[in-house]
Amino acid sequence: MNKNFETLKGTYEYLPAEQTLREEIKRKLTEIFRIYGFSPAETPILCMYDLLASKYSADADILNETYKLSDQGERALGLRYDLTICFSKLIATNGSIVMPFKRYEIGKVFRDGPVKLGRNREFTQCDVDIVGVKSIMQDAEFMNLTHDGFKNLGLDIEIRYNNRKLLTGLIQKIFGKLDADTTRKAIMLIDKLDKLTNDELKAEFKKIDFDGEKVDELLQVLSLSFDKIKEKYEADAEGILKEGIDELSELILYTKNTVASEDMVFSPYLARGIDIYTGTVWEIFLKNRNVNGHDFNVSLGGGGRYDHIITEFVGTGEEYPAIGMSFGLDVIYEILNKMHEGEVKSCVDLFIIPIGTGVDSFKLASGLRNEGLKVEIEKMDRRVKKSMNYANKENIPFVVVIGEDEVKNGKIKLKDMQSGDEHEFGIGDYVSMKKIIENK
Amino acid sequence: MNKNFETLKGTYEYLPAEQTLREEIKRKLTEIFRIYGFSPAETPILCMYDLLASKYSADADILNETYKLSDQGERALGLRYDLTICFSKLIATNGSIVMPFKRYEIGKVFRDGPVKLGRNREFTQCDVDIVGVKSIMQDAEFMNLTHDGFKNLGLDIEIRYNNRKLLTGLIQKIFGKLDADTTRKAIMLIDKLDKLTNDELKAEFKKIDFDGEKVDELLQVLSLSFDKIKEKYEADAEGILKEGIDELSELILYTKNTVASEDMVFSPYLARGIDIYTGTVWEIFLKNRNVNGHDFNVSLGGGGRYDHIITEFVGTGEEYPAIGMSFGLDVIYEILNKMHEGEVKSCVDLFIIPIGTGVDSFKLASGLRNEGLKVEIEKMDRRVKKSMNYANKENIPFVVVIGEDEVKNGKIKLKDMQSGDEHEFGIGDYVSMKKIIENK
Repeated sequence: MNKNFETLKGTYEYLPAEQTLREEIKRKLTEIFRIYGFSPAETPILCMYDLLASKYSADADILNETYKLSDQGERALGLRYDLTICFSKLIATNGSIVMPFKRYEIGKVFRDGPVKLGRNREFTQCDVDIVGVKSIMQDAEFMNLTHDGFKNLGLDIEIRYNNRKLLTGLIQKIFGKLDADTTRKAIMLIDKLDKLTNDELKAEFKKIDFDGEKVDELLQVLSLSFDKIKEKYEADAEGILKEGIDELSELILYTKNTVASEDMVFSPYLARGIDIYTGTVWEIFLKNRNVNGHDFNVSLGGGGRYDHIITEFVGTGEEYPAIGMSFGLDVIYEILNKMHEGEVKSCVDLFIIPIGTGVDSFKLASGLRNEGLKVEIEKMDRRVKKSMNYANKENIPFVVVIGEDEVKNGKIKLKDMQSGDEHEFGIGDYVSMKKIIENK
Repeated sequence: MNKNFETLKGTYEYLPAEQTLREEIKRKLTEIFRIYGFSPAETPILCMYDLLASKYSADADILNETYKLSDQGERALGLRYDLTICFSKLIATNGSIVMPFKRYEIGKVFRDGPVKLGRNREFTQCDVDIVGVKSIMQDAEFMNLTHDGFKNLGLDIEIRYNNRKLLTGLIQKIFGKLDADTTRKAIMLIDKLDKLTNDELKAEFKKIDFDGEKVDELLQVLSLSFDKIKEKYEADAEGILKEGIDELSELILYTKNTVASEDMVFSPYLARGIDIYTGTVWEIFLKNRNVNGHDFNVSLGGGGRYDHIITEFVGTGEEYPAIGMSFGLDVIYEILNKMHEGEVKSCVDLFIIPIGTGVDSFKLASGLRNEGLKVEIEKMDRRVKKSMNYANKENIPFVVVIGEDEVKNGKIKLKDMQSGDEHEFGIGDYVSMKKIIENK
């Protein structure tokens, strides 16, 4: 076959064993999104390039990685690089949307960049966002949604959380008033606190002219619990620092009565790279970073409040406070795949092997499918032994062989492939067969 | 807002009310696919252009409408125009696939062509295919899958079916041996039998030098039932005509004991345009072509057996008989949308309105969500009356207002918004509330 037919680097084909798990992840997350009152929306992949390049959505790096193309009408188009830009556009162009607007979207996005672990050219994003709510109750609800989402997937996680106002407030408290750009640089450095040693970090701070002693003070503060920080600064906090302390206090107040609180870890250095965030931010990690000998130190998703971006994008003067998160479908898939390594789960409940009894076997399959069972018939004219081996290899839990005797007597035997037990039924007794199969 | 931000013609945004229905269609179809033993697979949207242009998959028309682009490595790429090419590629490049291989895929495809009703630039295809089975039992199973799929969607349809071998055989029987190209032209004309008058059709046949009397004979034969055709030709049928008669007889034999047979309509002129089909073909239409005053004369999907294409594509000499179908998600959506016009279904079971009781309301929502209920809290600080109006407009079935008295007494009242009835509960009695809400 032509070598040029191969799958492009950074794009993936998912075979049934893989895709079944991926679909299950989507289904389980969707279940939780709905419980929290979110509805699905779908936006196009193919967009006007101008939309993708809008100054409120993309930075230069992302635009360099945007796939560009044009149509027969010579319009400048691009493939979307994330779902947030489409979400913002949807808000801006649909005047009839009732606030608050809550949607989830699971869809493909594209980046023409270097491929490495966790960075693909075509990948699926899984976003949940709400626009129109300022209340911190919403931030708190996202903590619970995050917790329930991962619980439903069977993953034991911790939610690291922080507030950008608190972080900015602390920096300004310690270093004095700074311009926006310097504050931003400091925040980006702090965000690396996990990856660098204290000395490396101090060297980096020095490069942007931050005084050594004050950096020590900042690092010391960023190792404190929220209660200690509150105790230390609350009395004379004002402006953004006060807002940060208040918002975090409220977030903790709402969540403390819920199970989510057990998984929440206050992380005062967490900033979540991107500029858009204005308040609460959070990021998800496995509690035990290791699964069957494989390390997963990466983030499984995260989110935050971004009150300015959509407001500026719409540009009517009306306010659009927003908060949202992404679940990292690909990473979650990798982890669950490792957790269930070697387990072969069949997509079929019962395998029917006809011996010259095609029409009767077909009728049996029909009847059982009507009851909602997943049934397959041997149709490749393989010998019975080969068919049995196939069923065994595919881990199909039940098999029935139908020869002429079975048809004549109107009796068949369902073989439980694991225990070897046989259960006899009348050939049309679909309901009893269903009971045995479903109770397995 | 910038006019260039608008949605591209031929691409669509689906808001929650629309997308909820679209997701339900996908879910209901998937349910049936699984019952028939199909598993999901996912293939990339972004493909090597050479793959898309492979001579076994695309004709010139489709290639003219293929979106072309290139990446930073200057590779020639394209956006896939259908899922069959990706399915063929998957078979060809994954040597470990066990036959028969059954997959479904629901995914976006792209065509840079003129936009009209039913022809979009970005749209979703919903395909089910199997490769590796020659048995007509499989063709029969597709009749049942089609029937069950539409039944699950609540649509009353007819499945028009035919066999390309029968059609080719009849043409050759009446006109004598023809070369492949002439046979093809005749088949394409017959496929239009539904849309043209007999006179128009005869004029068209004349253009390709078909004799008038024989055309009359063909048209007469194509108005017969399968039993009559069989009666007339079976005795001395040979070659492809015999195969066609045998395959159709077998198809009918398998399905006659199942409910699908009631919806099956033999249509000897059905050919399904595309060249790839080699045996059974079928196409789905609404039984009553009209829904709430809107005509739907279009096909809702269809499929057929294509035994040569993948075989040629893989090119190893090994045979890959295949059969598959497409469900027309967009048309199905339009029809169901018209059927349920005006119905506002809420995504939420219960709306909680706190009056200064945020933390307790949050706890109640948490508890009920843990029970699997879809719960929303008023978070926009609207007045109670406005919140109530919102719940009413959104058709939310239950509402609870929680003031300080409710918290103090530990009792709340769920209001059934339709009947006006109120049910009193202890504030933590989630299970009892769930019972009332779910029995609504």
